[in-house]
Amino acid sequence: MNDLAVVNCREVVTLAGPARARVGGEMREIGAIADGAIRVRDGRIASIGRRAEIVRGLSLDTEVIDAQGGVVLPGFVDAHTHAVFAGTRADEFERRALGATYEEIAADGGGIRATVRCTREASEKDLLDAARRRAAWFLAGGTTTIEVKSGYGLDAGSELKILRVIRALNGERRLRAVATFLGAHEVPDEYREDPDGYVEEVADEMLPQVAEEQLAEYCDVFCEPKVFGAEQARKVLLAARSCGLGLRVHADQFSADTGSLVAAELRAATADHLERTTAAGIAALARAGVQPVLLPASVYALRGARYADARAMIEAGLAVVVATDFNPGSSPTASMPMVLSLACTQMGMTPAEAITAATINAAYSLGRGREMGSLEAGKAADFAIHDCADYRDLAYFFGRDTARAVYRAGECVYLRDTDRSANRPLY
Amino acid sequence: MNDLAVVNCREVVTLAGPARARVGGEMREIGAIADGAIRVRDGRIASIGRRAEIVRGLSLDTEVIDAQGGVVLPGFVDAHTHAVFAGTRADEFERRALGATYEEIAADGGGIRATVRCTREASEKDLLDAARRRAAWFLAGGTTTIEVKSGYGLDAGSELKILRVIRALNGERRLRAVATFLGAHEVPDEYREDPDGYVEEVADEMLPQVAEEQLAEYCDVFCEPKVFGAEQARKVLLAARSCGLGLRVHADQFSADTGSLVAAELRAATADHLERTTAAGIAALARAGVQPVLLPASVYALRGARYADARAMIEAGLAVVVATDFNPGSSPTASMPMVLSLACTQMGMTPAEAITAATINAAYSLGRGREMGSLEAGKAADFAIHDCADYRDLAYFFGRDTARAVYRAGECVYLRDTDRSANRPLY
Repeated sequence: MNDLAVVNCREVVTLAGPARARVGGEMREIGAIADGAIRVRDGRIASIGRRAEIVRGLSLDTEVIDAQGGVVLPGFVDAHTHAVFAGTRADEFERRALGATYEEIAADGGGIRATVRCTREASEKDLLDAARRRAAWFLAGGTTTIEVKSGYGLDAGSELKILRVIRALNGERRLRAVATFLGAHEVPDEYREDPDGYVEEVADEMLPQVAEEQLAEYCDVFCEPKVFGAEQARKVLLAARSCGLGLRVHADQFSADTGSLVAAELRAATADHLERTTAAGIAALARAGVQPVLLPASVYALRGARYADARAMIEAGLAVVVATDFNPGSSPTASMPMVLSLACTQMGMTPAEAITAATINAAYSLGRGREMGSLEAGKAADFAIHDCADYRDLAYFFGRDTARAVYRAGECVYLRDTDRSANRPLY
Repeated sequence: MNDLAVVNCREVVTLAGPARARVGGEMREIGAIADGAIRVRDGRIASIGRRAEIVRGLSLDTEVIDAQGGVVLPGFVDAHTHAVFAGTRADEFERRALGATYEEIAADGGGIRATVRCTREASEKDLLDAARRRAAWFLAGGTTTIEVKSGYGLDAGSELKILRVIRALNGERRLRAVATFLGAHEVPDEYREDPDGYVEEVADEMLPQVAEEQLAEYCDVFCEPKVFGAEQARKVLLAARSCGLGLRVHADQFSADTGSLVAAELRAATADHLERTTAAGIAALARAGVQPVLLPASVYALRGARYADARAMIEAGLAVVVATDFNPGSSPTASMPMVLSLACTQMGMTPAEAITAATINAAYSLGRGREMGSLEAGKAADFAIHDCADYRDLAYFFGRDTARAVYRAGECVYLRDTDRSANRPLY
């Protein structure tokens, strides 16, 4: 199989460390090797270190990749996205610019329900075509794995359709995709008067089918007093656990400590959002070992006043994760470098902490910490070569696609070429 | 000379309208033509309209460019950048993430003065090499013209060196660059005890040399009570006017109504920043016909609490401009699409208003409104083909490079190829 070496890297950021998610000061120890190099065999990291050490073992069969002075990082693991949907919501975006609130738009039938209408109508093929186009956006930022939630179907047929699209996307061997069933994302119109009836359908009808077809690894619930309260969330999550799924919770986005306490009580893998979480919620998550997944891009896009308190969470010993929350309403970005910028400028994380949160900690939150998220011998050769001078630049300069080349299991899945292809030589 | 047609555009956004900067409701009339096409001859727009009309006149010599369903806009005109500098300030970025303020870092010799030290030491060649690399970042967002300020030299030799680099950059015929002399950007260390002495040097020594060598079209001053007060700013700006330069003013970034009132009094072309401007300042700018240049990326990057009041300015009839403020300290982004996102999500502008502010209004602010900033017969064929479904997407989805191809005077100066160049066929 493939045997390759990546050389001429200004630095290689390994994220090597203990075989668990990183907490506290460990989040700043990202293992940057100046003039580092990587050896890949059969899709896995064979060795990693300074160039002089690595090139010594090359054979004639080794394909040598010139990183052209770029910075190499593990592929980002984006642990919270809603990347499979139909339609966009550019019209709502325009209304919000003029002052309409997300809540007002939802009351007019917009918001999640607008995307649900489009997604229910779309064929599996259309959804996959759209997801493929967006996969290129993730790759352009150096992401190699995304978690994707269903939740724009809200009926059994449509939810299963979305989960099959996630499976098909992953099967194309370009961007890795991990599926989460989020039937309890919103109460669909047909259950407006009977939300408990919908919770029953999710728990008793949809979840067994999802498990039967092995369409998801995780189950998530939008836990919020005005959407699915603690009791309803518990019902769905317990049913999911009995089906063998891991648990994630949309928690405390609009009100304090409902979702985080449910997540802690059930020892969920993650509690996501947490903009309104208090010290009590943070303490509960810490005791239960739940990983917080912070989503600053949705705060930005909704012009929210309050970002999650990342610093308090790091100080409480939580293994913080950051993710895009990519979706057509509250977080229309697929860029992990953009999330790094938001993490550093708006949440007070250092570049190293943010990168840890976007790679190894995110991988552990998806049960894949021993397989990806750092560049260590034996792990999958999922990495990106970024066009920058220093790993900090990924968070510092913002608004641009940084990846020059992206590899999944040692295969090039994205290559950006802007110099050679123009009509005439550039410079 | 070249004769080409651009077809297969999902829409062409012309920004056609009156031959002056747009105000009020005009800022929403951006002239989007569905399935539009453009004919270019000798580097200028020959005609523009619906495809059926345009293709009728094609000859065998016409090169036909397939926009592949992209959205075509005039090249963005970025009317406020500091794009020529040496070194970066990633270390300060890290300190700020941990809570150090911009003011504290400046007091330690960081901030603008850190970049001044690096830039003074750099050769003209090194500065040009760095500027070229960054030019690609601007192009990747669809920008074809940037204003560039000096101001990291702060002595005659270094300021002239920067201005020569701006001229050289423009001379490479890739990204257009318009030079502004900003000798009064900060008081250099050697004049700490004698700021008035520095103002005299700027006005009496540097400006005549800049004018003599025709190295700048505009002069700018950082007008702020703690940097250059109204009296000092006036002295520099009046000297600049007497040398034939146009006037721009860094105004009201940290305190209210000093800079804006000076800009109004002298009828400057622009007053830039304006985060602290009050209703009195806005009224003065309106009476004097000064264009506001709003720089939301610097508010974002400094985690500022207050964005400029774009809505009040539009309502007061000001011909609002938005720009990146690209610089290594307070605004490390070269992306006009990122600025459109910030304008819409943080300043309440609509996508159409933001695009008007980033194109035709920006062109007028640089004295080039009859030459660029809209796609109308006779104007320079400066345009970009963006990879999106709708012009609103440029502001809506954020954090990515949107341009697929960029043309300056009908010549392709940037082409992004991510599909064809990967090791194996992608999709």
